[in-house]
Amino acid sequence: MSDRPTLAPEAKRKVLRSIPYGLYVATAAGGDLVAAGTITWLSQASFSPPLIMAAIKVGSRLHAAIDAGGGFALHVVGEAQQDLAAAFLKPTSLEGGTINGLAHEPGPAMGAPILAEFPMWCEVKVVGSVAQGDHTVFVAEVVACGVRDDDARPLALRDTGWTYGG
Amino acid sequence: MSDRPTLAPEAKRKVLRSIPYGLYVATAAGGDLVAAGTITWLSQASFSPPLIMAAIKVGSRLHAAIDAGGGFALHVVGEAQQDLAAAFLKPTSLEGGTINGLAHEPGPAMGAPILAEFPMWCEVKVVGSVAQGDHTVFVAEVVACGVRDDDARPLALRDTGWTYGG
Repeated sequence: MSDRPTLAPEAKRKVLRSIPYGLYVATAAGGDLVAAGTITWLSQASFSPPLIMAAIKVGSRLHAAIDAGGGFALHVVGEAQQDLAAAFLKPTSLEGGTINGLAHEPGPAMGAPILAEFPMWCEVKVVGSVAQGDHTVFVAEVVACGVRDDDARPLALRDTGWTYGG
Repeated sequence: MSDRPTLAPEAKRKVLRSIPYGLYVATAAGGDLVAAGTITWLSQASFSPPLIMAAIKVGSRLHAAIDAGGGFALHVVGEAQQDLAAAFLKPTSLEGGTINGLAHEPGPAMGAPILAEFPMWCEVKVVGSVAQGDHTVFVAEVVACGVRDDDARPLALRDTGWTYGG
């Protein structure tokens, strides 16, 4: 830590863990790759055009599929769907035409896999990125969206007992 | 919308407004500029090095001060401090050595103004950015942090009655 003499690890952890997050299952398809994974580091980043920013783990299959496909899909996890979010913490499994057990169809804008079950989803197209850490920041334009359940309440990371940050 | 035939505005708004956010007062100093503003589009973006990503409005004084100074400070707004968050929605006012009425001192790592009153803060150094929308995505390394009130609970955007997104 000699290059950051003022960065106390406990304070850093406390500040960074104070940030609230939702839970999202991200999917991408590109080349021969199909990948899916649960992520939490996500925020809107512009109104016009509508952009989001998402941090995706370097070296992950999801990262490789985003690189290959140029976009991805995000699914909002509903408050009763922690089991689904947990399923997508595991490696991507493609069996019987499903992704980790869920049916899917190609998204209308980018062809990213749109998964069944989740109450809301969007497809995004990457327009820029910053690769400086153990996650790459992808900035992406929202190009398609769907709402299947108007009354769904999103699951928050703090409701799960999980932590990711600090 | 002819270039985005599948993007229904209502669905886009609903998906984007489902993302949870905190509230942060950002400050920056560079050249002759000192600026402060309340922001909400913020997430961690890497564990090692510790990075955050923040979307800052293009054309704002805060954006100009970050450009000039190469870093900024973030203050976590506590649950009883909505009035302070509101004060920093107004233009930056420098009177009597205060910023919008709050005392401050230079941060230990970047010299960004660290404001009194807030329960937690950090200083960050910009390491990359993406300028594609009406906000610039700044990716920045956390280089100093402070916790003044271990028991503070952060204010969430949804607790304020305000919206910023969609």
